[in-house]
Amino acid sequence: MNYSEMSSEQLLREKEELQKRYDEFKSQGLSLDMSRGKPSPKQLDITMDMLDSVKFEEAYKAENGFDCRNYGVLDGIEECKKLFADLLEVDTKNIIVGGNSSLNMMFDYIAQCMVNGAGSTPWLQQGNVKFICPAPGYDRHFGVLDFFGIEMITVDMLADGPDMDKIEELIKDSSVKGMFVVPKYSNPEGITFSDECVRRIASMKPAAEDFRVIWDNAYCVHDINDTPDKLLNVFEAAKKCGNEDMFIEVTSTSKISFPGAGVAALAASDNNINAIKKRMTIQTIGNDKLNQLRHVRYFKNLDGLKNHMKKHAELLKPKFEAVLRCFASELEGKGIAEWKNPNGGYFISLNALEGTAKRVGELCKEAGVVLTPPGATYPYGKDPKDSNIRIAPSFPSVEELEKAAELLAISVRLAACEKLLKKVM
Amino acid sequence: MNYSEMSSEQLLREKEELQKRYDEFKSQGLSLDMSRGKPSPKQLDITMDMLDSVKFEEAYKAENGFDCRNYGVLDGIEECKKLFADLLEVDTKNIIVGGNSSLNMMFDYIAQCMVNGAGSTPWLQQGNVKFICPAPGYDRHFGVLDFFGIEMITVDMLADGPDMDKIEELIKDSSVKGMFVVPKYSNPEGITFSDECVRRIASMKPAAEDFRVIWDNAYCVHDINDTPDKLLNVFEAAKKCGNEDMFIEVTSTSKISFPGAGVAALAASDNNINAIKKRMTIQTIGNDKLNQLRHVRYFKNLDGLKNHMKKHAELLKPKFEAVLRCFASELEGKGIAEWKNPNGGYFISLNALEGTAKRVGELCKEAGVVLTPPGATYPYGKDPKDSNIRIAPSFPSVEELEKAAELLAISVRLAACEKLLKKVM
Repeated sequence: MNYSEMSSEQLLREKEELQKRYDEFKSQGLSLDMSRGKPSPKQLDITMDMLDSVKFEEAYKAENGFDCRNYGVLDGIEECKKLFADLLEVDTKNIIVGGNSSLNMMFDYIAQCMVNGAGSTPWLQQGNVKFICPAPGYDRHFGVLDFFGIEMITVDMLADGPDMDKIEELIKDSSVKGMFVVPKYSNPEGITFSDECVRRIASMKPAAEDFRVIWDNAYCVHDINDTPDKLLNVFEAAKKCGNEDMFIEVTSTSKISFPGAGVAALAASDNNINAIKKRMTIQTIGNDKLNQLRHVRYFKNLDGLKNHMKKHAELLKPKFEAVLRCFASELEGKGIAEWKNPNGGYFISLNALEGTAKRVGELCKEAGVVLTPPGATYPYGKDPKDSNIRIAPSFPSVEELEKAAELLAISVRLAACEKLLKKVM
Repeated sequence: MNYSEMSSEQLLREKEELQKRYDEFKSQGLSLDMSRGKPSPKQLDITMDMLDSVKFEEAYKAENGFDCRNYGVLDGIEECKKLFADLLEVDTKNIIVGGNSSLNMMFDYIAQCMVNGAGSTPWLQQGNVKFICPAPGYDRHFGVLDFFGIEMITVDMLADGPDMDKIEELIKDSSVKGMFVVPKYSNPEGITFSDECVRRIASMKPAAEDFRVIWDNAYCVHDINDTPDKLLNVFEAAKKCGNEDMFIEVTSTSKISFPGAGVAALAASDNNINAIKKRMTIQTIGNDKLNQLRHVRYFKNLDGLKNHMKKHAELLKPKFEAVLRCFASELEGKGIAEWKNPNGGYFISLNALEGTAKRVGELCKEAGVVLTPPGATYPYGKDPKDSNIRIAPSFPSVEELEKAAELLAISVRLAACEKLLKKVM
């Protein structure tokens, strides 16, 4: 029954029942973490053979004979660049291989824009600088912007990407310098931008000539079922509009090989690659090439990498299903929650009754289940509707997830009852 | 015979003989590189066993059980922090373990000062900012300063460290914000700062409260003979003067394990560690912990690491000796060159007759031996005396070095003859 149709009495009875179930959970002393998109140990086990692939004699040499143990090769060994080029569907010359973190590559790029500009006056010397933030979005993107004192303007995420009407208005302001997006299996909603949306982004004509879109393609091969989404190649679309300098794409193997010991990469236009290399030449003598070599030796090529991802999907699929199954049975038809059924990525996004997400977070925490702090998916940590909850189902086991999801659903219902009862009383 | 005592005729004859020897070398078609402090393949071979130390079951777990393959642990796993703490003689809490590059940690720290200040107004908003540059010094330090538009003020390196009288004058200017130094086996001279010099640096009272000394201890355990230098602990000296916030120390295993796949670390006061972590929290989810684990598993502790360095010394010592032997026989007593006999580090610094270093570089290059470009050891790439030449003897074999050093010595003599003949004619 839809909660909005319940009488106060019915709501009170519902609340009592839920409170009983909640207290039972609480007494179990759970300790589960669904706060971060962290692969499970089993997912990490499947890549262990990678670790001895550079040990044996001469095995430390790149295809061109370069000794990967030594200094040099600023932008990555050729075969590793090729692997990422194939993955992101760009030319090898448009790839820079980084260290173990694409977040680091994004942070460094924004730092570079602040200090050196993007073919322009340093952003730090341009007065108040603003970024567009499609939300709900990735908290660490917002963190980078906040760190550099860049003002964040929230724009809604719609079913097929960010609200482009709004964005096309905002970019008429030349102090609006860019936006971060996760275009495929977006964090947290698991939305993939439609072709039309990608084309509209690719053809934007911002007033700021140093406008940059950070295209965080973190989940480019992270399908979990048999109907994967397909994302349009943004560089191809951008080239048609002479806009290729507007995009900085990043990805990493954090959720392909090892989160703590993967390899990150960046794709960009010739101009941007040159500007970034100019900085990197001063910043480092080169990233870890033995680890680049390990990855190429192990995956061999894009097909190898894609096959590898099927093993991850096998482990992740039952976890997503466990959560979605629980939501369907506990929350459907009650008018107090909406969620999406993503084809890939690392998250399920749940919108609870407005004004209850924080309370749901508290209830879960008190009963031993840690969620991403509600609000984190919005700029400045403030969800204007206090509604969005990000669920990261990858780390716990299926059994644990079933419990955690049930507790979460109970908490969503309990918080809704509390809220609705407050209204009527 | 001292060249200054030679007649024009004697100089001409000397020049002819040298030219003959030079031409002979040139005809050999050498191709040797003494330009960078790059370990030789043999040096890298000795550490190969490190590479399989995290492969076997459960071997990827840190001492506290943490799965090093996964996300987390911003400042490094505890046992790796301890190894660097012992190495740099500081508390574990004052260590941050980085990626594979201490240059990157220094660059990021200066970037942080530019954008966020050092407990102060961002340097970018303080107008013209200056750094003291003891020279000859490390070209990549100068590169970082130049990249950020920081004005470089050259100060002479004396026999036991930088010219402190001069420095104590310069720091009265509050726009002078810091200096980079290599306090042990300095790059390029191989000088280790005397205790008195370290104490003077540690007790400086700069007008700028956000003054920072980047204490690049790259060669802290890089002895090559049985009479190693000892460097005073700068943090202990600084604490006595309430100056511990003034120092940022870095080091790495680039020349201990693998230049391309080592581990870097930073040591600093509680205040500075907090400020750096505040940035890192936004910049990354953590560096490569499997590589940290490899290093701890392999070296075990500081003694293990020191024993390992003896193997490097065995390989490096004959190379330094080959160059120094050649200089002694070819250049001694001629009044045209001075050099130091370092107890460790990666370089030999040669001061040729004033106004000839560039010419020596050209002569060597034409005959197939690449040196660090003369001038590179000074800010803006300009050696005011055009005299200093940095020799990096680590990469070529002893046989190759004997040839390269002889060619270099011949070139130094030839350039001196040319210069002196120009004067008298």
